[in-house]
Amino acid sequence: MSDPKRVVLAYSGGLDTSVIAKWLEVERGLEVVTFTADLGQGEEIEPAREKARAMGIPDEHIYIEDLREEFVRDYVFPMMRANARYEGDYLLGTSIARPLISKRLVEIAAETGAGAIAHGATGKGNDQVRFELSAYALNPDIKVIAPWREWDLTSRTALIAWAETHQIQVPKDKRGESPFSTDANLLHTSSEGKVLEDPWEETPDYVYSRTVNPEDAPDEPEYITISFQRGDATAINGEAMSPATLLAALNDYGRKHGIGRLDLVENRFVGMKSRGMYETPGGEIYARAHRGIEQLTLDRGAGHLKDELMPKYAEMIYNGFWFSPEREMLQAAIDHSQASVTGDVRMKLYKGSADVVGRRADVDYNLYSEDVVTFEDDAGAYDQKDAAGFIALNALRLKLLAKRVRPKP
Amino acid sequence: MSDPKRVVLAYSGGLDTSVIAKWLEVERGLEVVTFTADLGQGEEIEPAREKARAMGIPDEHIYIEDLREEFVRDYVFPMMRANARYEGDYLLGTSIARPLISKRLVEIAAETGAGAIAHGATGKGNDQVRFELSAYALNPDIKVIAPWREWDLTSRTALIAWAETHQIQVPKDKRGESPFSTDANLLHTSSEGKVLEDPWEETPDYVYSRTVNPEDAPDEPEYITISFQRGDATAINGEAMSPATLLAALNDYGRKHGIGRLDLVENRFVGMKSRGMYETPGGEIYARAHRGIEQLTLDRGAGHLKDELMPKYAEMIYNGFWFSPEREMLQAAIDHSQASVTGDVRMKLYKGSADVVGRRADVDYNLYSEDVVTFEDDAGAYDQKDAAGFIALNALRLKLLAKRVRPKP
Amino acid sequence: MSDPKRVVLAYSGGLDTSVIAKWLEVERGLEVVTFTADLGQGEEIEPAREKARAMGIPDEHIYIEDLREEFVRDYVFPMMRANARYEGDYLLGTSIARPLISKRLVEIAAETGAGAIAHGATGKGNDQVRFELSAYALNPDIKVIAPWREWDLTSRTALIAWAETHQIQVPKDKRGESPFSTDANLLHTSSEGKVLEDPWEETPDYVYSRTVNPEDAPDEPEYITISFQRGDATAINGEAMSPATLLAALNDYGRKHGIGRLDLVENRFVGMKSRGMYETPGGEIYARAHRGIEQLTLDRGAGHLKDELMPKYAEMIYNGFWFSPEREMLQAAIDHSQASVTGDVRMKLYKGSADVVGRRADVDYNLYSEDVVTFEDDAGAYDQKDAAGFIALNALRLKLLAKRVRPKP
Amino acid sequence: MSDPKRVVLAYSGGLDTSVIAKWLEVERGLEVVTFTADLGQGEEIEPAREKARAMGIPDEHIYIEDLREEFVRDYVFPMMRANARYEGDYLLGTSIARPLISKRLVEIAAETGAGAIAHGATGKGNDQVRFELSAYALNPDIKVIAPWREWDLTSRTALIAWAETHQIQVPKDKRGESPFSTDANLLHTSSEGKVLEDPWEETPDYVYSRTVNPEDAPDEPEYITISFQRGDATAINGEAMSPATLLAALNDYGRKHGIGRLDLVENRFVGMKSRGMYETPGGEIYARAHRGIEQLTLDRGAGHLKDELMPKYAEMIYNGFWFSPEREMLQAAIDHSQASVTGDVRMKLYKGSADVVGRRADVDYNLYSEDVVTFEDDAGAYDQKDAAGFIALNALRLKLLAKRVRPKP
Repeated sequence: MSDPKRVVLAYSGGLDTSVIAKWLEVERGLEVVTFTADLGQGEEIEPAREKARAMGIPDEHIYIEDLREEFVRDYVFPMMRANARYEGDYLLGTSIARPLISKRLVEIAAETGAGAIAHGATGKGNDQVRFELSAYALNPDIKVIAPWREWDLTSRTALIAWAETHQIQVPKDKRGESPFSTDANLLHTSSEGKVLEDPWEETPDYVYSRTVNPEDAPDEPEYITISFQRGDATAINGEAMSPATLLAALNDYGRKHGIGRLDLVENRFVGMKSRGMYETPGGEIYARAHRGIEQLTLDRGAGHLKDELMPKYAEMIYNGFWFSPEREMLQAAIDHSQASVTGDVRMKLYKGSADVVGRRADVDYNLYSEDVVTFEDDAGAYDQKDAAGFIALNALRLKLLAKRVRPKP
Repeated sequence: MSDPKRVVLAYSGGLDTSVIAKWLEVERGLEVVTFTADLGQGEEIEPAREKARAMGIPDEHIYIEDLREEFVRDYVFPMMRANARYEGDYLLGTSIARPLISKRLVEIAAETGAGAIAHGATGKGNDQVRFELSAYALNPDIKVIAPWREWDLTSRTALIAWAETHQIQVPKDKRGESPFSTDANLLHTSSEGKVLEDPWEETPDYVYSRTVNPEDAPDEPEYITISFQRGDATAINGEAMSPATLLAALNDYGRKHGIGRLDLVENRFVGMKSRGMYETPGGEIYARAHRGIEQLTLDRGAGHLKDELMPKYAEMIYNGFWFSPEREMLQAAIDHSQASVTGDVRMKLYKGSADVVGRRADVDYNLYSEDVVTFEDDAGAYDQKDAAGFIALNALRLKLLAKRVRPKP
Repeated sequence: MSDPKRVVLAYSGGLDTSVIAKWLEVERGLEVVTFTADLGQGEEIEPAREKARAMGIPDEHIYIEDLREEFVRDYVFPMMRANARYEGDYLLGTSIARPLISKRLVEIAAETGAGAIAHGATGKGNDQVRFELSAYALNPDIKVIAPWREWDLTSRTALIAWAETHQIQVPKDKRGESPFSTDANLLHTSSEGKVLEDPWEETPDYVYSRTVNPEDAPDEPEYITISFQRGDATAINGEAMSPATLLAALNDYGRKHGIGRLDLVENRFVGMKSRGMYETPGGEIYARAHRGIEQLTLDRGAGHLKDELMPKYAEMIYNGFWFSPEREMLQAAIDHSQASVTGDVRMKLYKGSADVVGRRADVDYNLYSEDVVTFEDDAGAYDQKDAAGFIALNALRLKLLAKRVRPKP
Repeated sequence: MSDPKRVVLAYSGGLDTSVIAKWLEVERGLEVVTFTADLGQGEEIEPAREKARAMGIPDEHIYIEDLREEFVRDYVFPMMRANARYEGDYLLGTSIARPLISKRLVEIAAETGAGAIAHGATGKGNDQVRFELSAYALNPDIKVIAPWREWDLTSRTALIAWAETHQIQVPKDKRGESPFSTDANLLHTSSEGKVLEDPWEETPDYVYSRTVNPEDAPDEPEYITISFQRGDATAINGEAMSPATLLAALNDYGRKHGIGRLDLVENRFVGMKSRGMYETPGGEIYARAHRGIEQLTLDRGAGHLKDELMPKYAEMIYNGFWFSPEREMLQAAIDHSQASVTGDVRMKLYKGSADVVGRRADVDYNLYSEDVVTFEDDAGAYDQKDAAGFIALNALRLKLLAKRVRPKP
């Protein structure tokens, strides 16, 4: 039996979720369990322990975990197998992290006997949807508390006043309005709101935190080789790495060369357009390299089917349906195709660009045949006369169409 | 009645099609009509007149035409409305030119009473398919002659020997083997074959002809503003331009900043993989800018539908089905969506990259609302409590799923 | 300026919407405008006038309209062009009527200066969504009142008590619980709820109102010929008819032969499964006949594209997105394909079945060629040797796949 | 090493393939291995042994096999999981048998060291494509001989004359022209050609061989219950059966009640339209029952994804791409969805119709909830107020659209 008075909170240790923790206790009379995860956001997570203790939370109810390997291995890499980009560009860096956080929230709720979970996402964004759909898909009886939809602390001033009234320390730099809001994990950093809300204005350089300005990047290109096995990257320049280590290494390359900045106006699931600025340095390199190795190892039928399914798959992740039958069905199809995606890709990194300049398949998985494609003598690998029949039968229906009167549409 | 002894040849004025012209006459006993089009390939087309005359073709059978505006207006722009990229990257520069050439070949055949057309595409490539499907779709009774599939001049040496035997001038630089083969028009230049056939080897810089190496591009970024009306670009930096003029201007920007190089291993319709190198300087800028203005002016439902349809649409063009009912159906859907795609996009051009940094919709067509999206007080434009109901009903089926035993897949 | 105290109610004249009318006045202090439409539901609409008057509504605020032709011409027929069936079977009879009702509600609101509309759909069903999405798409400032989601008259007893308290006449047969609930229009009658809620129990025969039991249908089949022009039916047995007249005539045929009964468990947009019983007598005949004429007049590329798009199109209508850019885009594609769909279909009607037994295209639009397909000598219309090349090139990628090691998925 | 002088022939024992066997020997100098399979076509296969012996083929080169269970289990059932119908109607009875025959031909070639296989399909049809694509996908080095595309025995008279010259027995009933041609297996019988070539003429009753005329079927309906486990039928009326036994039993029910007749004009992969008459008695019942059990056990997201993928999946099978990565990818997705498809369906069989009248899920897999859907008090299972928020956010983008000027398309 779960305890309706206990709640697991996704807790960053920052001001907002500290206020939420206290609010849940004071206003809702709940006992709070905190969950702080390292998903590679680049901030220490240990300080969250002291802050939680300071709010009187007992040690056994303070969960602090390093989820970086699980995040990359079980969420980022499967998504990358699909070449997923939302609305043509966005590599889904925030979207893909939410299901994992929800999964741990639900699991910790089970461990601690909590009947509810809580998160700090607002009522206008996609994250509330992602957190909650994931949670409900994993535990239909869980209760989800979203204070931003419920309380009246709707201005910064009110929030800070409430914090001070309740003995929550407010860091100096949080006293004023932040000029934009961010989310970060090992895959990306996103920024949105306030100074970014006019989509005609170029994003100021101070918004970027994960990449150098391409103009300040090295004047010499750098080449790296990424190795893939069965659709996932396993090594850089011949050095085998775990998933999270590899993505972190790509982030370093990307940061240095100013790769992966994206200024996007996107359509939120909740119905509005918003403007976001994304930095996905390693992810951008990874995504392009993955397409590069697929070029040699993936059959046309498989590749075109993947391309057709991709927008739908990306939308599912964006909208929060990671834990849904339809996402799992598409994943099964995609994963089936990746068994042969093994080989190396050479990437050129230069001032904001990550370009495939060479790729070679593992010998067992190669589908590219110089013998067949060559302009030179192909020793009978391909009979050019076959093309005549191929064209004739592809043309047959078009000829029959052309023979009849062409109706005016 | 068409004359079975007369043929309209797609004639570049170069060695290969000169040999074909002579071969059609000598070996097939046909009377040749030549058709030379300026599609923006960057070569003079008038010299083809003299060469045709030199082969004894009468003036009234020498067609030389500037098709640049028609090409961009009726083929490139409609395709760009779809954000079409084949296999994730290729902007279809060669594919989109073929239907127009075929259309003119068929029309000239009708004007001159010719019963056949001929082209210089080989039996291994996509272009034969595109030329012929287009031709048959426009005239089901036309005969198509593809000498490369039929003759025995299969080596360079044999071709040159045959040329010399038949008094065709062989330019010095055509005596040796070319290290690669190219195709060009106002949208792009493609290169393939020979030195490019090993996909692990980086493309040598001398292959590129339309763009500077990004490393040699200016050290300062350049900003331009592109204006769109109903889905098509109409002005750069406020200066109205015709379609071909505008694309040529974008090509100049792209050349200068090293934009639009693509190294791709792609899947041909005839069943093999090939490696191509593409330069689409203006097209790359255009394609990104078009997505930029769609971000503000296109509804989510319309945009996502377009994204889902795009791979299929791109495949149709790549495979040669421009003149097909299914391409026209998708075009009707796409064009319907573009009526509102009006506004300006600011692009930053810098060392190989073309990035959207700002966009503003025509006031009548804007769908982005700062009032709704703002983190600040939205004056009731959006009720955050609605999100709870939205999530609850989206979650309902997932909860029902989670309540039952989870079957092992 | 619209008046916030005036509301246009979709009014059937029945008990429920009479209670709503009064409730809007008494509990909300609104002035009610009633709108009663004949969509072919088979009930007199004039009695609604007296009932509205009896509630004190002035004549100029009582709207009674025959929308049958508009319904069939602008909603049913366009949908039929798509061969739309939701979840494989359902011909969307209820879904397609809602947008038209909303359109008139919004128009009448504009005419009468009303700031709101109201409907009698419950909070569990799809119809509330369809009514409201349609209304908001046509007038973003309209207010929608859905009493069933707001009031506390949640039991039949409470509703009847309230009615009697407020001098609303309660017909005898409405005093008890109805064993199921129905919706009807010229396209179909649907029944759901109560006795139908156990999906293992066969639907009792008394639920059906629009068709005879197939077992009681004539023992002799009946043949009819339906003529189509540009995708829409225009005549039966050579007799030209208006859209609504034609559908009504097909309903008579369908009723007589027990055609168009469907017992379905479907997925509602609001997230639950429900069991419905549908009777679509004329629609079922129409849908099958339409496919029959497409078989001869629609190109394969067009037909397969339509088949791929159909589930998405049907879902849009089911979910209430008739007035959306994405539905209009698909409609544009579908309508483009229908320009050639002209000819006659012979249908055999017999004890529940409506089968195509013959079809002939208008001579201008025929794509079927006995000359080409014949087992007999085809006089060169088709060269069987072309098939070898066709197969060879289609097989090429599969051969290249088979030559490499087959990876274990 | 395979022997280029040995060929495995798909041998029915009939006149045509007997002529082919002899022709391969006499005209091509090949040693023939015969392969005769029982796929449930309803003819004895043992007589083929004597006929092969009579042509001098040694016993070890005569392969006669009962493949019915493999056919239904590994081909028909997986296809049925997808609810596959080509062009809206056709249950792919011929298409699905070809891959299995090719697979055995290729395997027997490996066993006997043969370098080639041969089949008796003509150059106008789909079957040549299906046989050959399957064979090449399984053995890229196999040679395929298609005598109908190669020889000059293009008239019945010539064929019979050649047979008699070469001592092949010509049965009396094969001397004249057959009025149509057929193909049969456990799933269906197809008929096409000659008397069926005018699509306006109703199919004469003598063409049908697997079903009674619905008019002659019993006057009383019959009810059966089909049980499914994980997407495949496993029992009828509670009696467990193997796949082939179950399909044969359904065929008996279907025959008796005149179920599964289909008159279709379809689009062949080779580019022409043809008219076929199909009888799929058991398959039609099966297909409808499968949808019936999915209604209760398949989530909406999974079901709609399946519906969207189905036309593409059906086309792959129709076109001969069973052994392709893309078909396997879709199968992986489909099979993933079927893990929960377990329960019983009640079917009513009556004079040509097979209708779902009841369905109940296995208790573990049920997604239908009377508690949620009920019109009665649902005890809080569903909060009708949630619908308001659900609609509001779904409407948001439509409202933003409606607020701007509506562009003229």
